[in-house]
Amino acid sequence: MKKTDVLIIGGSASGIVTAITGKTQYPDKEFLIVRKEKHVLVPCGIPYIFGSLGDSNLNLISDDPLKNLGVKIMVAEVVSIDYTKKICTTAADEEIGFEKLVIATGSSPRITDKIKGTDLENVFTVPKNKVYIDKILEKIQTAQKIVIIGGGFIGIELSDELHKKGKEVTIVELLPHLLDTVFDEEMSVKVEQTLAERGIQVKTGMAVDEITGESSVSGVTLQNGEIIPADVVFLCIGYKPNTELAHKSGIVLNTSGFIKVDEYMRTDKQDIFAVGDCAENRDFITRKIITPMLASTACAEARTVGLNLYKLSTVKTFNGTISIFSTVIGDTCFAVAGITEKSALKEDFDIVTATFTGMDKHPGKLPGMQAQTVKLIVSKDSGVILGAGICGGASIGELINVTGLAIQNRMTVNSLLTTQIGTHPLLTGPPTAYPLIKASEAVIKKIRKQAKL
Amino acid sequence: MKKTDVLIIGGSASGIVTAITGKTQYPDKEFLIVRKEKHVLVPCGIPYIFGSLGDSNLNLISDDPLKNLGVKIMVAEVVSIDYTKKICTTAADEEIGFEKLVIATGSSPRITDKIKGTDLENVFTVPKNKVYIDKILEKIQTAQKIVIIGGGFIGIELSDELHKKGKEVTIVELLPHLLDTVFDEEMSVKVEQTLAERGIQVKTGMAVDEITGESSVSGVTLQNGEIIPADVVFLCIGYKPNTELAHKSGIVLNTSGFIKVDEYMRTDKQDIFAVGDCAENRDFITRKIITPMLASTACAEARTVGLNLYKLSTVKTFNGTISIFSTVIGDTCFAVAGITEKSALKEDFDIVTATFTGMDKHPGKLPGMQAQTVKLIVSKDSGVILGAGICGGASIGELINVTGLAIQNRMTVNSLLTTQIGTHPLLTGPPTAYPLIKASEAVIKKIRKQAKL
Repeated sequence: MKKTDVLIIGGSASGIVTAITGKTQYPDKEFLIVRKEKHVLVPCGIPYIFGSLGDSNLNLISDDPLKNLGVKIMVAEVVSIDYTKKICTTAADEEIGFEKLVIATGSSPRITDKIKGTDLENVFTVPKNKVYIDKILEKIQTAQKIVIIGGGFIGIELSDELHKKGKEVTIVELLPHLLDTVFDEEMSVKVEQTLAERGIQVKTGMAVDEITGESSVSGVTLQNGEIIPADVVFLCIGYKPNTELAHKSGIVLNTSGFIKVDEYMRTDKQDIFAVGDCAENRDFITRKIITPMLASTACAEARTVGLNLYKLSTVKTFNGTISIFSTVIGDTCFAVAGITEKSALKEDFDIVTATFTGMDKHPGKLPGMQAQTVKLIVSKDSGVILGAGICGGASIGELINVTGLAIQNRMTVNSLLTTQIGTHPLLTGPPTAYPLIKASEAVIKKIRKQAKL
Repeated sequence: MKKTDVLIIGGSASGIVTAITGKTQYPDKEFLIVRKEKHVLVPCGIPYIFGSLGDSNLNLISDDPLKNLGVKIMVAEVVSIDYTKKICTTAADEEIGFEKLVIATGSSPRITDKIKGTDLENVFTVPKNKVYIDKILEKIQTAQKIVIIGGGFIGIELSDELHKKGKEVTIVELLPHLLDTVFDEEMSVKVEQTLAERGIQVKTGMAVDEITGESSVSGVTLQNGEIIPADVVFLCIGYKPNTELAHKSGIVLNTSGFIKVDEYMRTDKQDIFAVGDCAENRDFITRKIITPMLASTACAEARTVGLNLYKLSTVKTFNGTISIFSTVIGDTCFAVAGITEKSALKEDFDIVTATFTGMDKHPGKLPGMQAQTVKLIVSKDSGVILGAGICGGASIGELINVTGLAIQNRMTVNSLLTTQIGTHPLLTGPPTAYPLIKASEAVIKKIRKQAKL
């Protein structure tokens, strides 16, 4: 029987980062990644294969960093885990013994039975699977009309990329707005406007009744009877955790189907960890279970696991997960961190919000200047920053990480106002009106005004 | 006699932000700014007037935000302060009474008597003065050969902007490297290489003996005898605080000539504050007096003053100033936060440093991807992050603020490793190899290795 010290099931972001961090921390231990795919795609880069990149080979994660560290890789499917004997078995009936097991099996696109016709030819999902993505790439060469069902991140980024390639793209979203579950309304509206201005059809608050066609798709029928002609349809209605293996092996899942883990990503079974999309997350602010399914979150978890595989050496001072992510449409960028206003209200937080729109360069006459809007969601009495929504140019990709650190360090608007921020004419907003600071000031002003009433 | 509640002397960044924050906090108080200049330049934008902007009118700070709030503005020069009677007198002999006084008199270019010929025609400094800058702009129209004496931020940014306009530019720096006092050597070397690649002559470790010419400058003679022909010379050898007024009025200065202030920017005299370049700063890490002279620092101080003019309502939880700034040459950006390696060693900190170079987009094949290098300076036993140096594309302008918050929140590399970072293919490094995180990992690896020896 094959044996390893640390066995990692899954070769995407969280598997890789667990292996690299773990092998660096415990160089004397043997690490083996077992993965199903020969080539691993950069997960967040997948939409860009369809436009800016044009080729999935430009979106691969190299095995070199793993190999250089001495991490072994095996292409196979693990079909069972015996957690008492500490043995995994592959589809080819090979047994692998382990000291520590890390389940990093990721997620797969959801399919719904509420929409008829999802099995027609040229109806695709967007899995993290190079072979499948290459098949789509070939098929869409001749397609002109494309309908994307689902206005989440993948749907939106895909629509913009396909549109760059000259396709006629329509997005259909069931909820009142695109990105409805992760953005506040005004930011969703701005996303919709930006897409529309670029020539993408956006239909929100609209259920899809049926995907129609003979053998291949020819159109999408909406609940209001409208028919949108389509050569290709993408189903982008979310992802489900790949937890069948864990479940059937007796590892406990939560009620949403994610593997239950503690703060250090330890499952209920001794020496078995779970990381990434298949593992549960607890929200930093609400303390509820959330399902961000982000590579960045997965990697933070994977670092925690890698460092703490044999001993809890790296104490997790940030307790829980904040949602933090960004997206781009054309040259307009959108990002959120922490909790949105609507989630905060739903969770009964007593909050104040304020928004400031300024510039992302200074003076504003510098070429390439874009407006930058920062909204802060703040606990009214404690002043603690709970969340932020930012819209602007490319610099907001890191500006959201500034707010992310503010939230995770439990900073108040008060402390933000007295902190030092670096500014530069070509790179940031002005020192006199740095939008994150101005939004903090606006929050404080509101809090004081309300206190006087 | 004219009377106001809050009198602010100086109309640049710190004066403006004091007025806006203060008037917002204390709307019932009357605020008056007395400034010498009719039009106020964006201070950090000044080098860009000579290239990207081309016109000082595109680099003005509007008075509208002040006027809209009801802040009064008076163009005059205050020549004396009577702190017992609480009266200022202007050059036109007008008296202004105040309840609270904020001295925001800024800084002026240094001139040295070690270099002969600084009084020749076409030898300029770079003051925050529109009239003077407009005069330079006119004079350099016909100039072709320009020598910049002093390789600090202003000298470097100016050289790159003038070069964009087709000028032949040479920078001469006395110290061994450009930006020698604020960057570690490897980053200075990279700055020098980037400038040289762009066609700017860089001469470091080189004293200037004399600026030569009949009435107008014709050349610069170096200490080694070399003569550089020059139509125009810029003296960019630093700035001195404008504290004569405070000094002669009996307000205490420190030994470096800055106005002595406490944590809340209060001078030794009741109800008199000082902010910005004229006020002293205490380093967040070394606790020593430092002189960053940055608009961003000035604005952080000004917010503290504005909020706390009448009552210490906004407690300063960040104690001291971190140096945090960025600059750009061509499309390569450089930024630092906190302490450099050489300053840390000079101050006897027991440190570990590590550097990681990765990508600022992912996958690396995306158009416009630039390398991103992060160096961390970390306290060896406590793991506390003391400083960072970053080099890369435009996103580092905000990435340095991520590290700035990490330092000011006294984060350790351990806590940074377990924090959530948001990533996006087009906007940031990859989740699997975000350079700031990878640099933290490299630091931890080194600390552990050393612990085993």
